[in-house]
Amino acid sequence: MRTTKYLLATEKETPAGVEIISHQLMLRAGMIRQLAAGIYSWLPTGLRVLEKVENIVREEMNAAGALEVLMPSVQPAEIWQESERWDHFGPELLRFKDRHNRDFCLGPTHEEVITTLINNEIQSYRQLPANFYQIQWKFRDEIRPRFGVMRCREFLMKDAYSFDINLVGMEEAYQIMYDAYSKIFTRLDLDFVAVAADSGAIGGSVSTEFHVVADSGEDGIGVNESIGFASNVELITLPVPEDVSPAAPQLEMSQVATPGVHTIRELTELLGVPASQTLKTLLVRGIDGPVALLLRGDHELNALKAEKCEQVLAPLQMESAETIRSKFNVEPGSLGPVNLECPIIADLAAVTLADFVCGANVEGHHLTGVNWDRDLPAPEAADLRKATDGDPCPGSPGETITVKRGIEVGHVFQLGTKYSEAFNATCVDAAGSSVMMWMGCYGIGVSRIVAAAIEQNHDDDGIIWPEPIAPFSVCIVPINYNRSKNVARTSDRLHDELTAQGFTVLLDDRDDRPGTKFADMDLLGIPHRLVVSDRNLANGVVEYKNRRRGDTTLLEMETVVSQLSDIVTYR
Amino acid sequence: MRTTKYLLATEKETPAGVEIISHQLMLRAGMIRQLAAGIYSWLPTGLRVLEKVENIVREEMNAAGALEVLMPSVQPAEIWQESERWDHFGPELLRFKDRHNRDFCLGPTHEEVITTLINNEIQSYRQLPANFYQIQWKFRDEIRPRFGVMRCREFLMKDAYSFDINLVGMEEAYQIMYDAYSKIFTRLDLDFVAVAADSGAIGGSVSTEFHVVADSGEDGIGVNESIGFASNVELITLPVPEDVSPAAPQLEMSQVATPGVHTIRELTELLGVPASQTLKTLLVRGIDGPVALLLRGDHELNALKAEKCEQVLAPLQMESAETIRSKFNVEPGSLGPVNLECPIIADLAAVTLADFVCGANVEGHHLTGVNWDRDLPAPEAADLRKATDGDPCPGSPGETITVKRGIEVGHVFQLGTKYSEAFNATCVDAAGSSVMMWMGCYGIGVSRIVAAAIEQNHDDDGIIWPEPIAPFSVCIVPINYNRSKNVARTSDRLHDELTAQGFTVLLDDRDDRPGTKFADMDLLGIPHRLVVSDRNLANGVVEYKNRRRGDTTLLEMETVVSQLSDIVTYR
Repeated sequence: MRTTKYLLATEKETPAGVEIISHQLMLRAGMIRQLAAGIYSWLPTGLRVLEKVENIVREEMNAAGALEVLMPSVQPAEIWQESERWDHFGPELLRFKDRHNRDFCLGPTHEEVITTLINNEIQSYRQLPANFYQIQWKFRDEIRPRFGVMRCREFLMKDAYSFDINLVGMEEAYQIMYDAYSKIFTRLDLDFVAVAADSGAIGGSVSTEFHVVADSGEDGIGVNESIGFASNVELITLPVPEDVSPAAPQLEMSQVATPGVHTIRELTELLGVPASQTLKTLLVRGIDGPVALLLRGDHELNALKAEKCEQVLAPLQMESAETIRSKFNVEPGSLGPVNLECPIIADLAAVTLADFVCGANVEGHHLTGVNWDRDLPAPEAADLRKATDGDPCPGSPGETITVKRGIEVGHVFQLGTKYSEAFNATCVDAAGSSVMMWMGCYGIGVSRIVAAAIEQNHDDDGIIWPEPIAPFSVCIVPINYNRSKNVARTSDRLHDELTAQGFTVLLDDRDDRPGTKFADMDLLGIPHRLVVSDRNLANGVVEYKNRRRGDTTLLEMETVVSQLSDIVTYR
Repeated sequence: MRTTKYLLATEKETPAGVEIISHQLMLRAGMIRQLAAGIYSWLPTGLRVLEKVENIVREEMNAAGALEVLMPSVQPAEIWQESERWDHFGPELLRFKDRHNRDFCLGPTHEEVITTLINNEIQSYRQLPANFYQIQWKFRDEIRPRFGVMRCREFLMKDAYSFDINLVGMEEAYQIMYDAYSKIFTRLDLDFVAVAADSGAIGGSVSTEFHVVADSGEDGIGVNESIGFASNVELITLPVPEDVSPAAPQLEMSQVATPGVHTIRELTELLGVPASQTLKTLLVRGIDGPVALLLRGDHELNALKAEKCEQVLAPLQMESAETIRSKFNVEPGSLGPVNLECPIIADLAAVTLADFVCGANVEGHHLTGVNWDRDLPAPEAADLRKATDGDPCPGSPGETITVKRGIEVGHVFQLGTKYSEAFNATCVDAAGSSVMMWMGCYGIGVSRIVAAAIEQNHDDDGIIWPEPIAPFSVCIVPINYNRSKNVARTSDRLHDELTAQGFTVLLDDRDDRPGTKFADMDLLGIPHRLVVSDRNLANGVVEYKNRRRGDTTLLEMETVVSQLSDIVTYR
């Protein structure tokens, strides 16, 4: 391919208001363009990467014995009503009516379709195990799409669904997919971790998430590499301390003015106390009105844990500022537990505090030197917070975790019989009895992987593609292509020879300054670069540069194609 | 691939209520399943064919210099309002609101998206010519989806859009696509014809349709192969005869009872007159109320021609039976022009009739021996009918056409500046002036091609795939796979060796009767079949059968792989 016949569409400036680096670089490298919030067109460079990811996923799914199918994007309401997700899925499920006023939705996932489809095709245990997958554009009407294709509305997904005769079969199918996923992310050359996870809206019991490790990740993952532990922090249960009685009070309680203070950070800076000595009060909706959840200032609420408290409504919802004002006559930032007239649940780490700082229920004021039992009753205690660095590793006494950030790119679920029961998807077993099929489902965010790979592989100059998914493996940058016949002839010949050998080659034949071309090729992140110049040709060499290592070396013109064959693993 | 690890999903019985052969065979061969009206899942066999078609289209588009992109399915209303198609497209455009109450639609085509996208990326004539294509699932909310994937709602389309600096550039781009399309349909091994066409809702001037020739085709194509003429019959203008005066009357007009007669066919059978001697009266909506269009009983109305009459409303709509009853006090089947109180336009072939038969405007009665001028005034005459066998070939005196049936699978358009003007899509020309870009658009119905190929290639036993798009190139049918170790070992070895050589092989290792397996492989239409049996193995041979020719021959076991390499063109 030649840049003059290509749509390079690179941009020098970082677009305004674009938060994360992968989003910035995908726009700057001419990979995507936004059409509407969370809805993107893929330009040639983006699509080349996407197709490489897609092919690796497809090859490993085929190798694992899964059969490719393709189900519709537009799904009738009836099947979602049968599984009862029409009412439970929430506004992420985009619903509409067709011209005959029938209800449909845009599929965000396909459990309903595959179960009804396969229920008609599979009657006997002889046809099992079976696993069907598709690679398809899906739609989720995110309330606040952001981060480019990382959290968008229209996205490319690989989803697979396994069918088995019993629990053991389902567990085997799950393990095959778990192994296939590990191969896929290894082949994509990504630093990833498989973590125990919550099953969320899909349902089912056992599930594992696959995360690409990156500082910008939205998920916290608790890991202990020495013992092979990894779990979404949301799922890490913290032990009840042996002694939950707080230390003895040293200070008197007093009210201090804290004008303009709205965050824990501002509070600790003003008063000179550590966040771990403060206590924050979060008001959430409960069964009989608001419930106050108390956490140490340096800890984060874990919604999954809070939802397990009997008094708290699930899904977890914060009380609005209006409710707080009208009910307690105070701004949310000044809430505190002393004399607060509502049920109070404190995190296990909050109940052992002494002499702590908290809101005073008086606008612009906090209380210091507060102590349980003395200034307010000892509260109900529960495990409410997200695990953090140094917390105990569950099930391994003496071991602790560290928390990494991850981007979820895959998720495998054991569904059990949830969907087969909804659709009465049975088959006949070896004894001739009709039994429910056991299902698993397995997702990979194909388009999200493209962004995640960039989050993990970039520098100040642009993207550094993992070689298996680079849009081109080799670029050729001629100096004075339009003025030197020798440079043009050599560059053209290299382009043609390498292309004939199966390399994906981009020849930058634009009439432009070398600096511009170098910058664009670095921005695009092409792993291997050849520079063709009169000066080097006079010595019978071309310059080779490795995008990731940054080092350059001179290759003999005579043997450059065979040398590149040794250097380049993925053509 | 082995059938025991595959989803064969074949069906013996022809499904009830399924009209056309390709739809029947796609269901019976386990290629597709309906999820909702006009919405289908593709099972493994169907998807394998679809992907082969897709790849041929992609290769030829790339070879023609087009760049692959991928645009969203979900499109915001704003761009459709800007092109004024939000109001004009009709209910085929499926519209809905997202969770924030913003208007969107499911894209049936992408002129709006590509024009806004490329307008931002292309600023200079130096970036032109450019051509962008995508292969993508689209949605058209057909009022009455039918014929399986032939006229469905969710369908796979290749759509391309060219951009040029001027008219000449657009014409060149159009010719490149015309040639690429000819290559694509030739490579698909289909009997096709390129025909002059109407541009319809897309707009623009010059356009050509590509049709697969098949008796079940919905479109009539007038052809004269000796002079290379082909045109959609709707576009064939018929000449005004030199003499339009009717022959002299021979009969008196009289009213005859025609009880139970509702069609021209019933009328001709009852009265023993040819259809060409009868006259049918069609009532359509006009500017000032109903207009009667008169055609010979053996001719069909051409809607495009009728819409060109000043008094007739476009798009053409028939008056309802209720309107006819209330306005003329008669059933539609008994309408006739004598004493009919509304404007009347007669087809050129109808004005030369004498002694004709027509409705009497009296329920259950017709008039015979009717003559212009004598029994009713000579009408306004116009070219209203579809051309038919033996009609003159436009522009070639003395030549006539024959009418074939075709399935439209491709369409190329010269759009001109219609969309660039709507979106002010300009670029700077060599002289530094800002000019509108000239566009073309080019569609191929990828999923429809699968059905069209079957319409053209089948017999009583099932599908006979054109080899380039067969789901598997070779099938192996073992006799007694589960009882003969020699048969099993040989079949497995053949399967593995052929697969290693790049053949797509299906080994039918089911524990089933040979007859069942033969029937399934014939139904699936796999071009090359090997039968492995103990009897033949004893003689060192396997049986080879060609699906299309039906002949069988014995191949030496020793050299069967190399012999197949000679026989099979598409692996």
